Amino acid sequence: MAKPETPKTAITPTRAQDYAEWYQQVVRAADLAENSPVRGCMVIKPWGYAIWENIQRELDTMFKETGHKNAYFPLLIPKSFLEKEAAHVDGFAKECAVVTHHRLVAGPNGGLIPDPKAELEEPLIIRPTSETIIGAAFASWVQSYRDLPLLINQWANVMRWELRTRLFLRTAEFLWQEGHTAHSTEAEAREETMKMLGVYTTFAEEYMATPVIYGPKTAAERFPGAVDTFCIEAMMQDRKALQDGTSHFLGQNFSRASGIEFQTKEETRELAWTTSWGVSTRLIGSLIMTHSDDDGLVLPPRLAPAHVVLLPVFRGDESKPAVMEYINALAKELRQQRFGERRVEVEIDARDLRGGDKQWEWIKKGIPLRVEVGPRDVEANAVMVARRDRGPKEKAAMPRADFVGSIVSILNDMQSGMFQKALAYRNEHTKPIDDKREFDAFFTPKSKVEDKAEIHGGFALSHWCGDPTCEAHVKDSLKVTIRCVPQGGYAGAPWADRVEEQGACVVCGKSSPQRVVFAKSY
Amino acid sequence: MAKPETPKTAITPTRAQDYAEWYQQVVRAADLAENSPVRGCMVIKPWGYAIWENIQRELDTMFKETGHKNAYFPLLIPKSFLEKEAAHVDGFAKECAVVTHHRLVAGPNGGLIPDPKAELEEPLIIRPTSETIIGAAFASWVQSYRDLPLLINQWANVMRWELRTRLFLRTAEFLWQEGHTAHSTEAEAREETMKMLGVYTTFAEEYMATPVIYGPKTAAERFPGAVDTFCIEAMMQDRKALQDGTSHFLGQNFSRASGIEFQTKEETRELAWTTSWGVSTRLIGSLIMTHSDDDGLVLPPRLAPAHVVLLPVFRGDESKPAVMEYINALAKELRQQRFGERRVEVEIDARDLRGGDKQWEWIKKGIPLRVEVGPRDVEANAVMVARRDRGPKEKAAMPRADFVGSIVSILNDMQSGMFQKALAYRNEHTKPIDDKREFDAFFTPKSKVEDKAEIHGGFALSHWCGDPTCEAHVKDSLKVTIRCVPQGGYAGAPWADRVEEQGACVVCGKSSPQRVVFAKSY
Repeated sequence: MAKPETPKTAITPTRAQDYAEWYQQVVRAADLAENSPVRGCMVIKPWGYAIWENIQRELDTMFKETGHKNAYFPLLIPKSFLEKEAAHVDGFAKECAVVTHHRLVAGPNGGLIPDPKAELEEPLIIRPTSETIIGAAFASWVQSYRDLPLLINQWANVMRWELRTRLFLRTAEFLWQEGHTAHSTEAEAREETMKMLGVYTTFAEEYMATPVIYGPKTAAERFPGAVDTFCIEAMMQDRKALQDGTSHFLGQNFSRASGIEFQTKEETRELAWTTSWGVSTRLIGSLIMTHSDDDGLVLPPRLAPAHVVLLPVFRGDESKPAVMEYINALAKELRQQRFGERRVEVEIDARDLRGGDKQWEWIKKGIPLRVEVGPRDVEANAVMVARRDRGPKEKAAMPRADFVGSIVSILNDMQSGMFQKALAYRNEHTKPIDDKREFDAFFTPKSKVEDKAEIHGGFALSHWCGDPTCEAHVKDSLKVTIRCVPQGGYAGAPWADRVEEQGACVVCGKSSPQRVVFAKSY
Repeated sequence: MAKPETPKTAITPTRAQDYAEWYQQVVRAADLAENSPVRGCMVIKPWGYAIWENIQRELDTMFKETGHKNAYFPLLIPKSFLEKEAAHVDGFAKECAVVTHHRLVAGPNGGLIPDPKAELEEPLIIRPTSETIIGAAFASWVQSYRDLPLLINQWANVMRWELRTRLFLRTAEFLWQEGHTAHSTEAEAREETMKMLGVYTTFAEEYMATPVIYGPKTAAERFPGAVDTFCIEAMMQDRKALQDGTSHFLGQNFSRASGIEFQTKEETRELAWTTSWGVSTRLIGSLIMTHSDDDGLVLPPRLAPAHVVLLPVFRGDESKPAVMEYINALAKELRQQRFGERRVEVEIDARDLRGGDKQWEWIKKGIPLRVEVGPRDVEANAVMVARRDRGPKEKAAMPRADFVGSIVSILNDMQSGMFQKALAYRNEHTKPIDDKREFDAFFTPKSKVEDKAEIHGGFALSHWCGDPTCEAHVKDSLKVTIRCVPQGGYAGAPWADRVEEQGACVVCGKSSPQRVVFAKSY
């Protein structure tokens, strides 16, 4: 049911009408990914995969600068490995893909069946995460304190059997990186945990243009087997939280389970202290929901697959050669500019389609800049520039040399503008709340009658006494969880100085040392 | 049993003593990879994985320059997809990992068992290759001739259940890239097949420093489901062939099986023409066996994880600060040099170990250059340089500025020297053979008494009538196969002008239009 008063947008429905469906439509319109015939698995299409490649390249550089090396461990994990760490079993050994046979043979009805003679003695699990298999390797690599610290990262696919899936946000198979490190002291392992949380925070803010609040999870929300889990939490435009990354201090739990033992300088034997940390293709879902609008994807220039598309506009066939020559020369000039560690990346779209259709296609794909060049621009040595962070019809004529000379600063301006916009949104919809009735109302969507957006208040900064019962009560009654105990990522926010206030638990009224972030979440 | 006349080498046994065991020892001594507790799967360790990262980066650039885009498709393939292409089933659906359950539960004896209630309706296979799952995606992406060509590449892990495995050469799980393209005409798909074979040839020669002969496979050696398979074949130092890469023209076989159909300009409907092409972590095995020597790994500088290691030599603790300051400044100067698309990559090894031990460790790891700096070098503003392509004791003093100024040309010299050495070896051990008795003798190791190397003649360029019976006879009697019908990669070889001669089949004597490459192979 179209509402007559709604201005026409490229994406239907709008965020306000039906946020969940808007998300799916943005993914589809930008040609990022699609569901596959294999239940719960996605196909990541070239434009979506290119975003992941940019995420990988920048993070990989940051990991290497902090002393980590990449390696690769087996996809399959023996069932017995998962059984070693008790908490880990409960968290991961349940919904997973189990390999039981190593051969197919022709069945009685002509099709293929698993060969009963090729049943594995011990079933193998497709890794849901690799602590156990990497722990087994570390146990043989680490003999002495001289072998520590061991700083390893892996880029890999993992699998968790999910019942309800959504592209990028929750899929059975996804791509990620998992850092795994071992240290000789608790202090060093804790320092590593926080260092990598810092890397993720920097990446979220500087590359994803996404403000994040960081801090430890509560015990209920910890990674199975971890002593402490730290996370970065971002606010989406439906005001729900999305966890962009986690860093775990694993204590000696996994080194005990895997036998990662070393000889100290004093010739005693000790268990190593380990950490693990990861981000996944979920970050692409986070990017979409943080920045996109009712016309489709909006991408931070630092992670965009391309920065600018050049769109030739012909007036009859005779204008083509001059326009294309101008466009090709312009592309060459632009590609000589460096934006961050990359060159400025240019697409030329000379397809024989209507100009308006092409414009809208690139708007929906979220390319930062669209540049039209027609015969008059060639004569005037000019270009017509449109920015994705402005209205879809807004264009400005610029002398060609000015555009070439300023494209890097335009992109930087867009990047910081997107961060500021997301920051203002997050700060506006984050509120210190001390009253339980106000708390309940904050998390209750104002209206479910006219739309399916169900947009509620956002992040509540409220007091919590530390009792899991109070936490569980909020989760059960409102589907609201404690995202983290904030340690940073909110400096300068209007409510920043109220985070560390002492107060009374919003549920039970007992005393509380500081506010925590309550939110609905993905 | 050590032979008194053998000079001491870092690797035991030597290539001449036991080639297969020498290979395993080189992998171990260079710390490239190890077997994992999961049968047939390997752990790729940081030094080995860094070689793969270099291979990936260079190939990825070449793929993108030829218009391909990366994407990602599901790990799991429904059994029914494999059943679609008859030849493909026979080749791939047999020895593979079969997922039958999606949950583990506590079993009667306390351990975990696959949950009988969570059996999948249709078993899923871990991809042995992705033609069928990518074909299904292409079928929905391609509607019109305007959607073609579709030029996609995927970097992924794949799995084939292998009984006898060897690190890098044959493992159940391995890493690879698989290109998949669809075209509107046969001619264009054939051109793509040859273009990517050309990319692989260039990569082998210019990056791997490995000469390769290229051409089509015989029908018996084709990829299951392909119309034509082309390959690049290299000679290892035991004179066996190793296939470094393949490029397949799939005709319309897979588009028929998957339904990749498009509307032509003339508004008729046609099946697309497809190709696929791939290389894998096997290339690392190929690198090792082509270049390494009895002191361990030798790496072509363009793929080496690092180009130079700086080794401080201290005379007492008081010399440390000056030496380390000099080393750090030198590292900075070296890192400012560009070697190909990379910076010169420098390791500093200041570990508190004996200098000789450190030297040998880096020799075994195959780093191209080792540079010692002691107090006297600091005084003389000089360095002591050792090259991996010279004897392990050979060192030359050089003024520091000369070394910094010439490191790139030294590395280029080593790179081309390695290619020339491998080329001379390949050419020397390739021989036109027309007599069946000579052919048999060529493939029979001279002596099995004293050693286990079993080194035979090499590549025989012999005539073949085209009859699969003659091909099978040679395979059954000598374990020798036709590696390819050579089309190039041998210009300038002493026997080059004899390849295209007409002649008589070495087995049956019938007429043959040209010689083919017969060899034992990995």
